[in-house]
Formats: sequence, C-alpha cells, structure tokens
Amino acid sequence: MTSPATFQRDKLELPFLKDVWYVAGWMSEFEGPGPFARTIADEPLVLYRKKDKTISALADRCAHRWAPLSRGRTEGDDIRCMYHGVRFRSDGTCAEVPGQSQAAPTLRVRSYSVVERHQLVWVWLGDPARADLHSIPDLSMLDQPSRRIYQGSLDYAAHYSLICDNLLDLSHIGFLHEKTAGQPVVELTDVPAGSCYMPGGSEAKLIDRGVRAESWISGPTARSVALPKRTPDGDLWTRTDFLVPGIFISVDRMYPSGTANRCGRLAPAPELESLSDTMSIQAVTPISKRESRYFYSFGPRASEVDVSEGAAMWRIVLATFAEDVKMIEAQQKVIDQHPGDQMGGIAADRGFTLYRNLMKRLSSEEAAAARDSASIDQ
Amino acid sequence: MTSPATFQRDKLELPFLKDVWYVAGWMSEFEGPGPFARTIADEPLVLYRKKDKTISALADRCAHRWAPLSRGRTEGDDIRCMYHGVRFRSDGTCAEVPGQSQAAPTLRVRSYSVVERHQLVWVWLGDPARADLHSIPDLSMLDQPSRRIYQGSLDYAAHYSLICDNLLDLSHIGFLHEKTAGQPVVELTDVPAGSCYMPGGSEAKLIDRGVRAESWISGPTARSVALPKRTPDGDLWTRTDFLVPGIFISVDRMYPSGTANRCGRLAPAPELESLSDTMSIQAVTPISKRESRYFYSFGPRASEVDVSEGAAMWRIVLATFAEDVKMIEAQQKVIDQHPGDQMGGIAADRGFTLYRNLMKRLSSEEAAAARDSASIDQ
Amino acid sequence: MTSPATFQRDKLELPFLKDVWYVAGWMSEFEGPGPFARTIADEPLVLYRKKDKTISALADRCAHRWAPLSRGRTEGDDIRCMYHGVRFRSDGTCAEVPGQSQAAPTLRVRSYSVVERHQLVWVWLGDPARADLHSIPDLSMLDQPSRRIYQGSLDYAAHYSLICDNLLDLSHIGFLHEKTAGQPVVELTDVPAGSCYMPGGSEAKLIDRGVRAESWISGPTARSVALPKRTPDGDLWTRTDFLVPGIFISVDRMYPSGTANRCGRLAPAPELESLSDTMSIQAVTPISKRESRYFYSFGPRASEVDVSEGAAMWRIVLATFAEDVKMIEAQQKVIDQHPGDQMGGIAADRGFTLYRNLMKRLSSEEAAAARDSASIDQ
Repeated sequence: MTSPATFQRDKLELPFLKDVWYVAGWMSEFEGPGPFARTIADEPLVLYRKKDKTISALADRCAHRWAPLSRGRTEGDDIRCMYHGVRFRSDGTCAEVPGQSQAAPTLRVRSYSVVERHQLVWVWLGDPARADLHSIPDLSMLDQPSRRIYQGSLDYAAHYSLICDNLLDLSHIGFLHEKTAGQPVVELTDVPAGSCYMPGGSEAKLIDRGVRAESWISGPTARSVALPKRTPDGDLWTRTDFLVPGIFISVDRMYPSGTANRCGRLAPAPELESLSDTMSIQAVTPISKRESRYFYSFGPRASEVDVSEGAAMWRIVLATFAEDVKMIEAQQKVIDQHPGDQMGGIAADRGFTLYRNLMKRLSSEEAAAARDSASIDQ
Repeated sequence: MTSPATFQRDKLELPFLKDVWYVAGWMSEFEGPGPFARTIADEPLVLYRKKDKTISALADRCAHRWAPLSRGRTEGDDIRCMYHGVRFRSDGTCAEVPGQSQAAPTLRVRSYSVVERHQLVWVWLGDPARADLHSIPDLSMLDQPSRRIYQGSLDYAAHYSLICDNLLDLSHIGFLHEKTAGQPVVELTDVPAGSCYMPGGSEAKLIDRGVRAESWISGPTARSVALPKRTPDGDLWTRTDFLVPGIFISVDRMYPSGTANRCGRLAPAPELESLSDTMSIQAVTPISKRESRYFYSFGPRASEVDVSEGAAMWRIVLATFAEDVKMIEAQQKVIDQHPGDQMGGIAADRGFTLYRNLMKRLSSEEAAAARDSASIDQ
Repeated sequence: MTSPATFQRDKLELPFLKDVWYVAGWMSEFEGPGPFARTIADEPLVLYRKKDKTISALADRCAHRWAPLSRGRTEGDDIRCMYHGVRFRSDGTCAEVPGQSQAAPTLRVRSYSVVERHQLVWVWLGDPARADLHSIPDLSMLDQPSRRIYQGSLDYAAHYSLICDNLLDLSHIGFLHEKTAGQPVVELTDVPAGSCYMPGGSEAKLIDRGVRAESWISGPTARSVALPKRTPDGDLWTRTDFLVPGIFISVDRMYPSGTANRCGRLAPAPELESLSDTMSIQAVTPISKRESRYFYSFGPRASEVDVSEGAAMWRIVLATFAEDVKMIEAQQKVIDQHPGDQMGGIAADRGFTLYRNLMKRLSSEEAAAARDSASIDQ
C-alpha cells in the first residue's frame, strides 16, 4: 500500500493533451452528410462526410466572419458557410468567395485528422503530421457480433478529470452505487470496505499509456451487475484499464472455482473458456473546463443473456451512471467554491495518482515537441 | 434629526461576521437524522442529528475528494461520505477510510458550534471556543403557546445588506406596501409621508448589539396589518429592534387612549395590559454575496384572532414580503450595473447608518481578535 | 473593388456613441403614463409621460437607494420612487423626501433629451445641451398613409456591431435567407454569388453620417421578397442607407425596362413614377455589450398589395429576421470563444469597413469635445 498523497485541488485537473485521439462520438451519431458540431477540449469542430462517405473535420468557424460552419451546407467534398457563402475544401483551404473572381488564399480554416474505428469517431487535435493511428486503443470487443452491445452517452457539467478519477477507483461502487451496480450489497463486516468486489485504485499499476487494476475474487462477494443471472458461483476475474486520453476498458469473467489458484492468481490466458464474460468500454472526452462528454457501452455475450435480461442489466447501468453524474457535478461545485485549499489523500487514490503523473509526463513531452517544432521552423 | 449621509454603493455591503450566531433554519426544517445542507456566509455546511437527537454541523465537504457530505449517510453519531465511503465523527475527525486498516488523521473536516433555541437552529461560524450562547437574542415570544404563530422563509437574489436596510427603515411600508401591509392607505395630506404609522429609520437609536426604533401613534393612522380587526382605536405602541447579525423583533401593542401620555410617551411597562399584542420575529442570513435567506414569523395572540382571521393576516404578510423581494432584487441589479457611483442620503437612513457603523466596529474587533490569536499561536 | 481588409475580432466592436439619437422604441410601445424601462448602450432609463402627454426620460435609479424608478409611480409631471417614496421632477431634481420638511438638493437623477418623431421615440444619451434634432434621419416614409406599414422589434444576444455588419452587406441574403427573403433562389451559375440581386457591401460608398449601397438590376434576377407579386419585370432600383447610430433605410422600386439606362444607371429622380415601391426602415439599438434591440418595419404601397398579400410578405420578413438572429447569436458565441484571433477580410466587407471608420472618427470627435468641455469647465 502506497502512502496516501495530499492533493491540491487544481492538481486534480488533468491537462487537455493535443497529440491524442479523442472520441468525438459513436459512428451512429454521424449518419448522412452532416455537418455535425462537436467541441473537444475547447476546440469547436465541424465534422461532415464527403461524397465517398469518409469523414472530415474542420474548425467550426468560417475564416471570414466566424459564423459557425456547422450552420453551413456540405457541397460535394466541400462545406459552404451559409452566412455570406464562403466555401471551403476539406483541407481547410478556401474554394470560393462569392462576389470575388478569386478565392482568398488567406481565408483558411484549420483541418483535423479524423478516423472511424471500433464504432467510434476519433479526432486528433494536434498537428495531423504527428497523428499516429497505432495510439488508438484496441477496442475490437465493440465489433464482436457475439456480444449484445448497448451504447450511449451523456454530458457532465464538470471537468473531465473528476470522471477519470471516478473510473480509476471503482471502490466507490460499494458506496455511491450501493443500490444499483453495487448490488448485492457487500456486508462491510465480511469484506474490507473500499476493496469491495471491484478493483479499487489501491491495486492500480502502470501499463503502457495507462493504468490497470485487476483482481481475482471468489465466494459470495464475487457478484456484480456485470454478471448474467444464471452465472454460477466461481472465481471472478475483473480487469479495468484506463488509457490516455480517457478510455476505460473493463472485463468481468467468471471461471470455475479453483481457476484463480490454477492461474497463480495472475491474469487467465485469453483462450481459457469462461462461464460468463461481460465487457464495458467507456470514454471521457473533455468539452471545456466544466463540460465533458461521457461515452459508454456494455456488452455481455449474447449467448448468456436474452434481450429481456440484457435490457434489465442496461437499465441498472444507466441508473448507476446517473448517480455518478449527480455526485461528480456536486463535487465540482464544492471544488469551485474553495479555490486554493488542499484535498486529503487516501490509499485508493493510487490509480488516479499514477494516471495524473502519466498525463503530466505526456504533457511535458508535448510541450517539448512543440518547442522543437518551433525551433525547426525558424 | 441627523444630517443625511452620503453612501458609496459598496459601503452598503455589510461584512459577513464570523463570531456570531446565524439562523440556519427553523427547527421544523431539521426533522429526522438528516443530513441537511445549508450555506451560511459563503460556508457550505452539513447538519445532522446524532443518536441522542442533538444536532451537529460540519463543513459540507469530505476531506478526501470534496464530495458534499450532505449527499452522505448518517451512521449513529457519525456521517459517511457516500462517494468513496470515508466516515467522520461529529467533531470532524476521521473514523474510517475504506480499504485502509487505519483512519487517516490528516483527513479532517471543520466542525461548527450549533444549538437549537426558540424554534430556530443557530450556527456559530467562528472558533467554537469563542461561541457565546448569551449572544443569542431573547426570542422567547416564539415559544409562547398563547400566540398563534406562523413561520416561513424565502430566498433573495441579493446581498443581505439590502434586506437589513429594508428592515431598518419601515417608512417604506407606506410606499412599497401601500396595497398590502400599508393598508389602510394613509392620506399623504394628513400625515407626513415616510413617518407613516410605522417607525421610520429617522427615529432609530443604538442599543446593545443593535438598533431600535419605537414610537407611540394615536388616532386614525394608528392602524396596521399587525392589528386584529376588532382592536378598538387607541394609542399604538410599536417597537422594532434589529440585532446583530440580522435579527428583527417587532411588537405592535394597542393600549387605551391616553396611555401614551400616561407613559410620558416612553415605552410602556411590560406588565401593562394591552388591547392587542402582535409580534413578528425575522432573521436575515447571508448565503453568499448575492443570495440571502430570510426567515420570518408572525404571531398575534390566539385569544384575539381566530384561525380564519390569522390566516388572512398571514396572507397579507406573505404578499408584503413578496413585494420586498421584487423591489430589493431589482435594486440589487441596479447597484451591480453601476459600480463606483455614490448613493444619496436622507434622514430615514439613520437606522441603517447606525447599524452599519456597529457592524463595522464588530468586524474590526473580530479582525483584531484574530490577529491576537495568531500572535499567541506563534 | 477595395482590397479586403483583415479584422481583429475586437475591432468589429463599434463604440457606443453618446451624442446621437438612439431609437428607444416604437411610439406604440409607450401608451399611457408609464413608467417604461428601457436600457440603451448600458444606460438604464425610465421613460414616462407628463400630464400634457409629452415624454420624459430619466436614469432608471432613484438617487437615494438606487431602486429602479421604473417600479415607481407617475404623479402629475413627477415620478415617485415606490420604495421609500422620494419624488423627482422630469428634470431630475428632487421634489419631495418623505419624512423631511425639505427635499434634498443633492438627490438628483440624470435627465435625458427625448423626442417622438416618425412613429419612433428617440433618446439622446449625451449632454442635452448638444442634442441636435437635425441629426434624426428623415424617416417620413413611416408617416405615409399611402403605405401598408408593418412594424415590430426583437432582441439579440449579441453586440450590435454584428447586426450592423449584417445590414451593411446584403449579399448574405442569397445564402442565409435562401429559403425566405432570398426567394426565388438565384442560380449561382448565372449570377456571381454574393452580388445576388441585392446590393452587397462591395458596392458601398460613404455618404453624410452613413454608408450607401445602390444598384440597378434587370432581368430575371431582379426579383425580391420586397416586390408585390403582380409587379411586372423591369429595371429594379434598390438603395440601402445605413446611418449613424444604426438606422437602416431601404427602398426597392421597379421601373419599366430601359429606365436604368435612361437614368445613366444613376439614381432615378424621386418624382419618376415606378411600377412598385416598397420600403423598409430598421434600427439597431445597443442595450449592452451582448444585448441589442432590433426595430424593423416594412411598407409596400397599399395600392399594390392587399391585406392578405401584405400579411404574407410580412411573414417572410419575420422568418428572414429569425434566421439572422440564429446566425448572429451563433457567430457571437464563436467570437467569444476565440479572443485575440484575427478574422479574414473579403471584398464584401467594404460597407462595414467604411461604417466602422466613420464611427471611429465620430467617437474621436466625441472624446475631443468632452475634453474641450472639461477644460472650459475648469
């Protein structure tokens, strides 16, 4: 157990990285040509589909008078501002200025790298030349037809750091969600509170571009909203990864009793057959300093839950997230009422602390890379 | 009559004292164990009842991640934060951190002195060591079973100073409340406007920790919404005290004609029997710089008004307070539109001026005491 | 064609002049004695009618405690604050302080010059001594009984500069209003987009205290929502004047084919008979930095449109203005998200650029005049 740290309130606020892929939305939100308005990390964007259906992303303001291009009209591969009619190409260059014989080369809108993968639309906020597709996490569980997948999103009036903090310590499930995802209630006399049946932040360890918590739990506390009802008792293996810039991947797998020990209490091999298998993939995208969008999905195996049970599980998941919103928005208000004061630290903060340090390092690297680019440009 | 003063807008803003008892609410608002959230003078508090029903008050933020404790759960004499489960005692010390073998001594929540008296819950914002129960005003009229007492509260979007200012010059009743508490309308040709039938600020004098206005009025203008209908004409004695940090106590008593002169136009002896007797006790509690809570009560003698007449009087009182809210919130907006300008002074401002100087002195004394404590601590 | 300029965002913001007549409202808004609250260029005003029905304007705050006088009561030629009852004359001097034998000469409210003309109420924000009735534009078309005149107003959550900018370049009609005032849609292949059939800012020229754009258009594109349906094809002459501090006057007149050339493509003589004649007079009044009130009217000749056609035209006009509001409020939000950045310029900005320079010059002259007054006062 690490020694608890002491946080200053503003140190909770993670930076908005640029050189990362943010989730702009579920692919299903971007049907038709658009345009679609989305704001990511204080950058208002307009997304639209070209004739070949590929998606483009530009800054959401006309270079002329700053009308939002998302109130514009797609025209073939271009987008036209519908205030005074200036038209732009998907690379942000100006194609036409009404009333002028030539387009204006100085009228230029910033363009962004954007890609569709794993049912999600991803935007790279930094220099497109540095956009690295390999840094999109493997979320191929979202593409598995064998799963019954539910997906949605909701907005928080809070800094995205508070949502990351929430997802990096699931020990809160036993308290905040005692009547939803925390069911059946764990008797505090039997199990150390805070470790509950879900991995808490105190077990967290650093992995590549993220933080992992995993554990084997056996016996009567090894139950979870993530398990189909008919799942027999056994050894429950849970793992949650939280990856830059805010991607949460969790799996809950039940195995026959004895499996945990046979695996030396380490991660089971992927090919090892499980009694049940449920995943949840979530993503936190900052909109502004006090607005965030939270994308979530939940996917048991279709062979283990029918439509009716799946819908019932999903209702509990949604109720759970509603509790998070209420608590975190209230927490944000308290934080904003007390600038400058210091928070106290406990062991369960370890997950968030590791992640915060990782983000701090990446932010420094980004700043250094920007300085290097600037000196090369000279 | 004092010479009218000239105010600067910001000088209207009374300080938020710490070493005073604020009204947190009517006792009837705090039924059951709680927790209950209240903010006083920019300090968010959580109040809850212990097993023995006594009431406790803590800062409304968990020392861990600043989730509001008012979203928590009382457990015996303690309160548990229902985000990550940290539990605190009523003195603010930490009783349990889930997942840790020991509670964290550095996790500490500020505790406040709190007491129930005269149907009200009072909180001392300053150092509990200095909490002085004798400075709670005698509001025992609220405890008199012989009165038919109505009580309520409402919130203002205004600095509490403007409400104090309102209560320190009741001459406004003839104008702002001409159709409610100002009934029957006083003919301006007969009576000097502004002195009306209620004491104006121009008669105010300093008393211990407050300002008093009292007067005898006789004849047809000696009527008031505070008088039961069947009260015969006579000599009306009214007195209003406005005490630190915002307690208003008014009495309206009708005596047989001639009493005023027999008393030398001074206050009648308490034991002197009156024809009618109505009291109103009110309290102004700052929430923030632009939010205030206003508590009020109204109590004629039960022997003088039946249920039906009492309810009718109460409706007029409520309509009167609604007029105050509209006017004072509009006044606050005008003030906020004109930073830096100067207000003009009139004779009726005397009450508020006396009170403002008293508050200024108390604020200086508090600052001096804080400096003394700081130097002793060194 | 002038070379396109580059704007800084904050340079778009026109100053709030003082020594000008602002439109406070349509005369029809000021029926009865009042009082009426209006805010112009950050100055809250109260307007009311005296016994002789002439209109007065004072600052909307009592000199005592800054309650708004617009919550007061007119009494003959005076207005009484209905908080504590102080009464003021229409010149802003104090007529009565309740409870004092004398009024207070230091209690004084600022008074403004105000006049009714051309169905509108005009307020001069500067020193009344400089109020110059000749600077009210000739809007006598609003008084013509031969016209079927519609009028209205709406509020913008935007700086008034953005509305001026809109009215100084009508080339936006072909894009923003393509489905309303832009009907019938001009084929972009036939006509240079942005010049459309309405004069764009690129043709603008400076006139006395304003900017004018006028043009002759012939053939199938010479159609406009402003033309009665039965107007035959011909030569359409349109002129729009935009005058300080935000008055827009437009006329659309159809003449028999060949008239344009007979006039040498210059303005037709006023007495030349037209086939149709429609005017629109509009006014933009700043309320605050992010609120503006937009007054508008529309008047075809009654002999050319019956009640039913007039109402149909008016509905299109209203739908057109609703599109402006949506776009300009969205534009304001984008601008506020990007302080410091630079806008790009195009040829059509010429009208606004001329107007902005005119406003800048008038603002400098006002500042110089204020300095002169100050040195004379010494």
